Amino acid sequence: MCGIVGMVGQGPVNQEIYDALLLLQHRGQDSTGIATAESNGIFHISKARGMVREGFRTRDMRTLLGGIGLGHVRYATKGTASNEEEAQPFYVNAPYGIVLVHNGNLTNTRELTDELFHRDRRHLNTSSDTELLVNILGSELQSEIGGPDLDPAQVFAAVTRVHERVEGSYAAIALIAGYGLLAFRDPFGIRPLILGTRAADPSASVGESIGVEAVGHSGGYEWVVASESLVLENAGFEVVRDLLPGEAVFITLDGTLHTQQCAPTPQLVPCSFEYVYLARPDSVMNGIAVYESRLRMGDRLADTIAKYTPIEAIDVVMPIPDSSRPAAMQVARKLGIEYREGFYKNRYVGRTFIMPGQAVRKKSVRQKLNAMSSEFKGKNVLLIDDSIVRGTTSREIIQMARDAGAKTVTFASAAPPVRYPHVYGINMPSREELVAHNRTIPEIAEELGCDYLVYQEVDDLKAAILEGSDVTDLDMSCFDGRYITGTVSAEYLAWVEGSQSS
Amino acid sequence: MCGIVGMVGQGPVNQEIYDALLLLQHRGQDSTGIATAESNGIFHISKARGMVREGFRTRDMRTLLGGIGLGHVRYATKGTASNEEEAQPFYVNAPYGIVLVHNGNLTNTRELTDELFHRDRRHLNTSSDTELLVNILGSELQSEIGGPDLDPAQVFAAVTRVHERVEGSYAAIALIAGYGLLAFRDPFGIRPLILGTRAADPSASVGESIGVEAVGHSGGYEWVVASESLVLENAGFEVVRDLLPGEAVFITLDGTLHTQQCAPTPQLVPCSFEYVYLARPDSVMNGIAVYESRLRMGDRLADTIAKYTPIEAIDVVMPIPDSSRPAAMQVARKLGIEYREGFYKNRYVGRTFIMPGQAVRKKSVRQKLNAMSSEFKGKNVLLIDDSIVRGTTSREIIQMARDAGAKTVTFASAAPPVRYPHVYGINMPSREELVAHNRTIPEIAEELGCDYLVYQEVDDLKAAILEGSDVTDLDMSCFDGRYITGTVSAEYLAWVEGSQSS
Amino acid sequence: MCGIVGMVGQGPVNQEIYDALLLLQHRGQDSTGIATAESNGIFHISKARGMVREGFRTRDMRTLLGGIGLGHVRYATKGTASNEEEAQPFYVNAPYGIVLVHNGNLTNTRELTDELFHRDRRHLNTSSDTELLVNILGSELQSEIGGPDLDPAQVFAAVTRVHERVEGSYAAIALIAGYGLLAFRDPFGIRPLILGTRAADPSASVGESIGVEAVGHSGGYEWVVASESLVLENAGFEVVRDLLPGEAVFITLDGTLHTQQCAPTPQLVPCSFEYVYLARPDSVMNGIAVYESRLRMGDRLADTIAKYTPIEAIDVVMPIPDSSRPAAMQVARKLGIEYREGFYKNRYVGRTFIMPGQAVRKKSVRQKLNAMSSEFKGKNVLLIDDSIVRGTTSREIIQMARDAGAKTVTFASAAPPVRYPHVYGINMPSREELVAHNRTIPEIAEELGCDYLVYQEVDDLKAAILEGSDVTDLDMSCFDGRYITGTVSAEYLAWVEGSQSS
Amino acid sequence: MCGIVGMVGQGPVNQEIYDALLLLQHRGQDSTGIATAESNGIFHISKARGMVREGFRTRDMRTLLGGIGLGHVRYATKGTASNEEEAQPFYVNAPYGIVLVHNGNLTNTRELTDELFHRDRRHLNTSSDTELLVNILGSELQSEIGGPDLDPAQVFAAVTRVHERVEGSYAAIALIAGYGLLAFRDPFGIRPLILGTRAADPSASVGESIGVEAVGHSGGYEWVVASESLVLENAGFEVVRDLLPGEAVFITLDGTLHTQQCAPTPQLVPCSFEYVYLARPDSVMNGIAVYESRLRMGDRLADTIAKYTPIEAIDVVMPIPDSSRPAAMQVARKLGIEYREGFYKNRYVGRTFIMPGQAVRKKSVRQKLNAMSSEFKGKNVLLIDDSIVRGTTSREIIQMARDAGAKTVTFASAAPPVRYPHVYGINMPSREELVAHNRTIPEIAEELGCDYLVYQEVDDLKAAILEGSDVTDLDMSCFDGRYITGTVSAEYLAWVEGSQSS
Repeated sequence: MCGIVGMVGQGPVNQEIYDALLLLQHRGQDSTGIATAESNGIFHISKARGMVREGFRTRDMRTLLGGIGLGHVRYATKGTASNEEEAQPFYVNAPYGIVLVHNGNLTNTRELTDELFHRDRRHLNTSSDTELLVNILGSELQSEIGGPDLDPAQVFAAVTRVHERVEGSYAAIALIAGYGLLAFRDPFGIRPLILGTRAADPSASVGESIGVEAVGHSGGYEWVVASESLVLENAGFEVVRDLLPGEAVFITLDGTLHTQQCAPTPQLVPCSFEYVYLARPDSVMNGIAVYESRLRMGDRLADTIAKYTPIEAIDVVMPIPDSSRPAAMQVARKLGIEYREGFYKNRYVGRTFIMPGQAVRKKSVRQKLNAMSSEFKGKNVLLIDDSIVRGTTSREIIQMARDAGAKTVTFASAAPPVRYPHVYGINMPSREELVAHNRTIPEIAEELGCDYLVYQEVDDLKAAILEGSDVTDLDMSCFDGRYITGTVSAEYLAWVEGSQSS
Repeated sequence: MCGIVGMVGQGPVNQEIYDALLLLQHRGQDSTGIATAESNGIFHISKARGMVREGFRTRDMRTLLGGIGLGHVRYATKGTASNEEEAQPFYVNAPYGIVLVHNGNLTNTRELTDELFHRDRRHLNTSSDTELLVNILGSELQSEIGGPDLDPAQVFAAVTRVHERVEGSYAAIALIAGYGLLAFRDPFGIRPLILGTRAADPSASVGESIGVEAVGHSGGYEWVVASESLVLENAGFEVVRDLLPGEAVFITLDGTLHTQQCAPTPQLVPCSFEYVYLARPDSVMNGIAVYESRLRMGDRLADTIAKYTPIEAIDVVMPIPDSSRPAAMQVARKLGIEYREGFYKNRYVGRTFIMPGQAVRKKSVRQKLNAMSSEFKGKNVLLIDDSIVRGTTSREIIQMARDAGAKTVTFASAAPPVRYPHVYGINMPSREELVAHNRTIPEIAEELGCDYLVYQEVDDLKAAILEGSDVTDLDMSCFDGRYITGTVSAEYLAWVEGSQSS
Repeated sequence: MCGIVGMVGQGPVNQEIYDALLLLQHRGQDSTGIATAESNGIFHISKARGMVREGFRTRDMRTLLGGIGLGHVRYATKGTASNEEEAQPFYVNAPYGIVLVHNGNLTNTRELTDELFHRDRRHLNTSSDTELLVNILGSELQSEIGGPDLDPAQVFAAVTRVHERVEGSYAAIALIAGYGLLAFRDPFGIRPLILGTRAADPSASVGESIGVEAVGHSGGYEWVVASESLVLENAGFEVVRDLLPGEAVFITLDGTLHTQQCAPTPQLVPCSFEYVYLARPDSVMNGIAVYESRLRMGDRLADTIAKYTPIEAIDVVMPIPDSSRPAAMQVARKLGIEYREGFYKNRYVGRTFIMPGQAVRKKSVRQKLNAMSSEFKGKNVLLIDDSIVRGTTSREIIQMARDAGAKTVTFASAAPPVRYPHVYGINMPSREELVAHNRTIPEIAEELGCDYLVYQEVDDLKAAILEGSDVTDLDMSCFDGRYITGTVSAEYLAWVEGSQSS
Repeated sequence: MCGIVGMVGQGPVNQEIYDALLLLQHRGQDSTGIATAESNGIFHISKARGMVREGFRTRDMRTLLGGIGLGHVRYATKGTASNEEEAQPFYVNAPYGIVLVHNGNLTNTRELTDELFHRDRRHLNTSSDTELLVNILGSELQSEIGGPDLDPAQVFAAVTRVHERVEGSYAAIALIAGYGLLAFRDPFGIRPLILGTRAADPSASVGESIGVEAVGHSGGYEWVVASESLVLENAGFEVVRDLLPGEAVFITLDGTLHTQQCAPTPQLVPCSFEYVYLARPDSVMNGIAVYESRLRMGDRLADTIAKYTPIEAIDVVMPIPDSSRPAAMQVARKLGIEYREGFYKNRYVGRTFIMPGQAVRKKSVRQKLNAMSSEFKGKNVLLIDDSIVRGTTSREIIQMARDAGAKTVTFASAAPPVRYPHVYGINMPSREELVAHNRTIPEIAEELGCDYLVYQEVDDLKAAILEGSDVTDLDMSCFDGRYITGTVSAEYLAWVEGSQSS
């Protein structure tokens, strides 16, 4: 899980990319990076561990010159979070000079690494699959080099070859020195990427002309590509559209847009977890409003709760803040039960200092949440969360509710049981650590310590997300074990689990 | 507006004070400080600009030794926010050695400054009224010095004299080197302060014995005094009670509690703004649950809205996150209108970098909030905020709603019009800057740009807060101009406004 | 060993005090601090661990407003070097507000601490004798408070009482808020302090009028008081004179100088170690040029070397850089032997990083010095050092010379054997750690591993320093065990050694 | 002017490279960098602005894993000093992965840049000629790729091609991922580079076997390549020899050394400025001891001084510390005049803070040097400096001597007049700024303000350096305008001067 953004402006883009990264901060807080390019092709790159706010100082920003750039926030999916060398963007200087950022996860990394080393003599300095991706792209662009200049057709040919060689999920943005910005999305569109534009002169209106037909129009427009639509909304860009699965977009330095479908049989199968948990509620992704989809998850969850639990005994419905709030509100509304926010989220998180001679304090949900006794005392409460993964947090929350005086605790998850690993870019534990792995719902309830436990049905989640949309399929692999890309074998899953646990 | 905490433990208190300050961070983010004392009387003090998380490093924490301590988060009410020298706590080394933190605002500072200089030859190095307060306390303790040791009666006598000399609002906590922790609250109890305890041995239960009668019991207990009750709840302390107006509490190093009423005619008149906006919703203050009081504000506001606006035309009710959420929910519920969260608050706030040759970007509400077009398009929206002070934010929010497609915008404030300065510790602009100053409600509505504007009635706010409570009066001076302490004259107000604007 | 400076200017003094501290950096590198006062009496204080260059950032300097100030560099003599709380200056806020810096060491600290606590109820927060000194001064000033204003006579009366109560060595500078700068030197003048002046308008010449008779003249002059004369020279101040032993100087904010002898029987007995090692060679201290005194030490040492060793066999004379260079040059010249700089001092000192799983590297002289093999190979070398304390460094240097190929190594010290502790402000080890303690010179030679060892005679050192000067006595206690102040008993020495080793 | 070091060890090399960079710090203080490689080919790179001590923190060092590495200290010769992106080492990831550091200056950069872009499609992100060099090396290695592995012959073939393409001065060290360390020196050996070795087991002695014949021996040895021999001496390495002009050394990961002459007609013409000023006196460079050469410069300068000035009137000879000390001592000795160190160098250099409303203070030699009046008053002084470039410092020093009371000032330079730009890696001003450009010696004397001015003769400098050595030629281009490499035309000089002044 990462957040990416790229911009082609007619003035400096450093501050706007920084602002966009703040808006995408929820997608990754382990490291961050910005790269910009001047019109003479000079790149400026600044990366840092941790969050955006702490990562860039004035002196960093002042070096980030240029009217074209990209940025990244990283949530480590593989490797150790503290590994600064895996911070994106990654840079290769041949051919042309390319910097690239990437959201997703490649699943045939071992084959690709071998090819690069033995065939291309390219050195990979990390185990990051982003470094792999920029080198694959570089090696394909190298083989396209013909005449004196790089043209869009060559770029699209290289992306086509990337799609052939690479398997997994990827939404990527790259700068090619001296030429422009390239963005592309994998042939299943698993990870999101959306394109926006605005008139360079803010007094001019963008008008109705923006759409697929905008291809080839030039001058006077600024462009943005980002993981989520709220970046566009916040910075005054108009949405053009989500990139299609397999599509590539190439915007030259002068602001001319080129697009091309680079996959033979693209098929949109977006990741369902974006709607469940990852995306900001104010984003619209593949035409589906995230907030609305969460409300619908609540509507459907309410029915399932009513089916399986004695709802007449419930006094109050409460969300686990923040992401389950829309679902919880709809559950309360539909079931006609009082809605209260009995948990308060501590916004200001600090550190536990290691003092000489003192034992290390256990990390606890209590540092993140406070339960108001006045709301729990003597009540039968129904707690709504967006999903249950390991179950450790849920167990602590249920205990907090009891400590605060709850008489009974019913727990409901707006997502179905998570029983399979997620290999498309969300950091999840190995199967053994999933509380729903090899357990029935009553066994899970016992494990969590709640009186009743209700999960969303798989079909209901799918329907809640897709309702009213043109999208017809979803990646729900962690719920149903169906992996849309070819290479996810039992052997691969074992390997992923091994490398993540190290 | 500040947050304070003090602890008497039986082991190191540095980490717990740090944790408490994080929980009070919403009360002030301009500076922070912690002081601890070892049993031999040595103080350790660490202060920093900005927020708690950035203010203390491991090496700072390692110096903060001792089983007794206090902490502070500051929201600058007077002076410039960036003035590190005004960070609390303040220290005087004679008599005994005293460090003190303070939430509130003194209103007879000029007289006190003169007295201290001419009578006591005490040097004030800042314009902070906390430095003033610790020197007044020190000078009164000095005049109490008699026998070889300091006893509680002397401490309470000094506090009694402080009440006589000082006017304004103050909740204060002090450490007296080698003796213990002193806490006291002004004779009107304007600012909050609550006392908690727990068994030093966590396996022992505190039991029923804690109450006013606990006075004088010794040993085996740890104590906390804090601005808000959630600090107690979060750290496993049991609430003893709010300090009474005028009351002082003195806890000696061995954990013995002494309390005394030090004012002749105490009267509880707590600040209403704590309930409106300042306090965390999960706090209980003067026996009144803040969250519940906000729900009641919503109930009453709904009636007023129904009275003055065509509610049948409204499609949706929306809060301005976060503090107006409970009120908004109750408005929606009571009026039977759909509730939606159309604004999303950007949690990760960054900076605007000054680039050579670029103009400074205007600060805007848009950096803090995002309006989801999907929720606004074509709708008649009712926006609920907790209060309206300057009106600039409200105006921007209303414009954002319109830009996002709202057909009409009705705006309602859960608090009445703010027409007078707040002199009891909340930083407010001068009267000229208050949008409600010298304006009728229609004039304000025009200024804000909304279609309809509704304010809570003054009596309704009072009733909403006090309903079901033993408290009978409230400081509502910024709404009604009644100042409970003596010295708030027109001249004083003019002076306050002058010094704040500088 | 510390360095101090104070200034009364007619404009901001922060940068000049900072520059002066850089020039005094050789006197202490453990911590540093600057205090300034504005004409309204507001103090600004900034302290930091480590060196001046790293201790002050632009934002620190911008707060150090005011036309009067003082500064300090600290070499920890007592307590741990890393104790930031012992960084100077120290501040007390009653009476008047005083900040003080101090070079020296008090020897009756235990009595003073008791008096302060029991009589004055003054709290000492550290074990620093500077905090003690500012409180003694404060308590004496308090008892002088009479009329509405502080006059010089009161200040001098307080200093007189300080001399009566305090024993040991001290050169001190203080700011009294709203009044001026006070400087005083102990009745034996053990530690140095020198007064300088310049016309505020640099185009005016200071002229002949400066001298004792300048007392009382006012306006148009800026003043500096510092540990060493080079500070004056470097900043364009003209030397007025060294402060007399027991003398106090009080300069009011308007630039008027007042001086008075505050000791009944002052007697100048300056510390000989300043000339041997501490002071910069370009300083003139008590009328004696340090560089010249070191040349004379070389002249006399040459005679002693000739008396005790076979100098005809020596091929080359080498200094241990930097402080023994003048002596070594004179030895070479007088003995007619080739002079070479075979050791090169590494100016850029780094750190040894602790790597997981690696052993900690031993600190070694080799990180500080490099021996050029070409200068040592096959030669009989005579090494000159300024003094020998523990002997560990000397032993390592002798071994380095042998490793670089020296045939024989003769070692000579420009100071006599150090056999007694130094209690007047230079950090020295306990007697047991002194290589000369309870050892004869042949035994020391064996311990150090040199072929011949020569020490300066005690009388020669005294004569070398005093030659051509009006000064008649010197503190040479670490060489001869004679302590000029009263309280240095065997018990005290044992206590000092105990507290230093902890 | 830069300093470089590379190591092949049998354990971690990070701390030793760090220590070596401290010893080379005098060669550059603008930026620094270290790269290491693990045996699996992973590089770790850490770079920083400023000095070594401030550039690396523990967390940086902990990432610098691996038994092979290199380091750099940079003195900006081209570009702006503050440009962090030009800090070395530079990395390219194809072929193999190469990091490289470089001391020197290329003179055909424009041609090389064009070639790289048009022929190789390699992107240069800076104007650093080090980035150019690593790309030239990379492109030549790429064209050598044949079988499955890289062998030394391929590496040497690539260096041979580098010598053919590149003009200028360069001593370079590179790591090739997974293979080893490569070092090479330009065909004229203008910049220094020396090879050392030690037994990996320190108890084993290296013995007589080290020499050219060591080529090909394997195992049990650790290797270092560095700009100066003192690095070897300090870390316990034995000198193997200076690299020959045009020679390349390739040490594989297992410690096997391979060397080969890669230039058809190598010729040793080392830079004379290393001996005059750059190198540390304790280094031996090309078999010439730097300290001894400086003593000989003094001997010969003495004769010239005696020839042109009335030496009988001179009272005292003084060096300008530190680098002219050996020459000055020999001048004093040979002329039989008293030697004194009247200038003292301030070791602790701080900053000038910009205060609001204050004018910026002029930088002055007085911040770096102090003149002791006692040594100057009434004397005729002879000042010796190592060289005179712009003349501004000399002029200020002469004025300081006069201000300190000197009767007459004779100024002598141990180097001849600098009349031409230095294009081989020393940052020098354009011709117009050189005080000796287009001026006769009397005109220069007048410009500097001294009574007499003496310069070393060009032949004397050459003879002083070469005396007793096998080296037969020297680069003295800045004194005589003879540029040994082909491409230094008038046009090139004009371009260099233009780009430096920008």
